[in-house]
Amino acid sequence: MKPKQTTNLRTVKLTIEFNGAQFAGWQEQPGLRTVQGELIRVLTTILRSPVLQLSASGRTDAGVHARAQVVSFKTSADLTNLGSVSYGVTSLLRGEVSVLSASVVEDDFHARFSPHRKQYSYRIFTRNAAPILEKDFVWHVRKSLDLQKMKESAKYLSGEHDFTSLRSADCVAISPIRIIDESEIIESENELVYRVVAKGFLKQMVRNIAGTLVGIGLGRIAGRDMPQILAAKNRSAAGVTAPPQGLILDWVRYS
Amino acid sequence: MKPKQTTNLRTVKLTIEFNGAQFAGWQEQPGLRTVQGELIRVLTTILRSPVLQLSASGRTDAGVHARAQVVSFKTSADLTNLGSVSYGVTSLLRGEVSVLSASVVEDDFHARFSPHRKQYSYRIFTRNAAPILEKDFVWHVRKSLDLQKMKESAKYLSGEHDFTSLRSADCVAISPIRIIDESEIIESENELVYRVVAKGFLKQMVRNIAGTLVGIGLGRIAGRDMPQILAAKNRSAAGVTAPPQGLILDWVRYS
Repeated sequence: MKPKQTTNLRTVKLTIEFNGAQFAGWQEQPGLRTVQGELIRVLTTILRSPVLQLSASGRTDAGVHARAQVVSFKTSADLTNLGSVSYGVTSLLRGEVSVLSASVVEDDFHARFSPHRKQYSYRIFTRNAAPILEKDFVWHVRKSLDLQKMKESAKYLSGEHDFTSLRSADCVAISPIRIIDESEIIESENELVYRVVAKGFLKQMVRNIAGTLVGIGLGRIAGRDMPQILAAKNRSAAGVTAPPQGLILDWVRYS
Repeated sequence: MKPKQTTNLRTVKLTIEFNGAQFAGWQEQPGLRTVQGELIRVLTTILRSPVLQLSASGRTDAGVHARAQVVSFKTSADLTNLGSVSYGVTSLLRGEVSVLSASVVEDDFHARFSPHRKQYSYRIFTRNAAPILEKDFVWHVRKSLDLQKMKESAKYLSGEHDFTSLRSADCVAISPIRIIDESEIIESENELVYRVVAKGFLKQMVRNIAGTLVGIGLGRIAGRDMPQILAAKNRSAAGVTAPPQGLILDWVRYS
C-alpha cells in the first residue's frame, strides 16, 4: 500500500476544515457526495491533471465534522502556486470545505499510513432547553447524567484495550486492539465534551464510546461498568452509537 | 406606553435563544417571518387565548442572533403549566427558537421599558482561510488588522457619547446620547470579539461600531480616529455597517 516514488509525481499535503452535514462521509462512493469524491473532482479541475492516491488520515462517517483533517495526494501538475490551489478548492466548495494549509511534502508522506496521532471531541449538550446556535454540532441529552461515573469510565479507556465492544459490528480492521493516549470528559456550561487522543481508531469507535458513556451516565447500562463492557468483547454489551453531528476531528499530528 | 394593570391579565417573562438567519428580524411585519410574529402566532395557538403587548428588550435586525433575549407579554390564559408552554414554543419553532426559561412576573414588568442592561458580542473572524464551522456566526475579515488601534478605539467608546455617527441614518430615537458601560476587543484563536454592555443602543449601533472598528483596523478610515468620528456627528464619517450574522445578543439583566 505504500506509495512508490515516481519521478514526475509530487506529494501534496492539505489541512482542511469541513462541515460533515454537507457530505455522505469521507469515502468516495458512486452516486453520493463525499469529501474524498468532491476533493478529487475539484482538484482535478483546478490542477487540470489527474489526482492520485487522495487519502485522509482516516475515514470520517457521514455527518462528522473536521476542524483540521489532513489529506495527501499525488500529482504531476505544476504546483508553483499552491496558494491558488487552496483558494480554488475553498471557492468551489464554498461554505463546506476550507483549505487551511497546503504544502509539497516528501514523497513518502501518506496522510493515512505515515505515523500520526489525532484528537476527536464529542459534544454532549446537557441543557434542558433544546440547542439552537449549537444544534448542528452537539448531541442533545436532556436527562440528568451521573458525571462522576462518566468521568471514571472515560479515564478507564486510556491505555491498550481490546475495543471489540466499542467498534462497529461491520468493522473490518484485523486487530480490535488500540492504544488510547488520552480519554477524558470536560465540563463546560450546558455541555460535556468527551475528548480522546490516539494513533488510530476503529470504525465508529468514538461515537460508540460517546454513546456508551451517556448510557452509563443515564444508568441505562445497568450492572455493567466500562471494564466489564470491554471484557465482554461484544458490541451489544455497550451503548448506542452517538449521532454523528456531535463528533469533530480536532487535529492530526505527524511524527 | 406603560402597560396598565388589568385584573384578569397576567404578565409572562420568557428568555429565548434564536437563530437570526431564520427570521426577518424581531419586529412583526406583514408578509415577513419575524421572531415577534412567530412568537405571537405559536403562543396564541398554545394558550388558545390572545397574546398582548409581546415585546423584547430591544429589536434585533434581520440575521442577528440571540443567546438569551428577554420577552414579555400579557395573557388571560391559564398559566399553571408554563413548562408545557416553553416546550410547545420550542417544538413549534424547532431548531429556530428555544425557550430557556418562563415565569409569571409582576404586572409592571415590561421587557423593553423595565430598566435593564444587555451585552452584545460581535465576532470578527480573522483567519485567512474561509470559516466553515463558524461561518453563520462571524464576519470574515481576511486582511490584517491593527489590533492596537482597534482596542484603543473600542475602549474610547466607554462612557457617555453622542452616537450620531454610529447610528443608522433612519434611526428615530429622540436622543443620540447613550452611555456604554463596557466596550472592548477580546482576542482568541482565529478571531476578535467586540463586546459591549449598555442600558440601551441606537438602531444598528453595534454593527456600525463593529464596521468602524474594522475600518480603523484596516486603515480605511484614514486621518480620523474614534474621537473625531464621534465629534463629526455624521454617519458618513464612520465605517460600514458590519454584516448581521456576526452579532449576537448575549444576555439581558433587569435591575
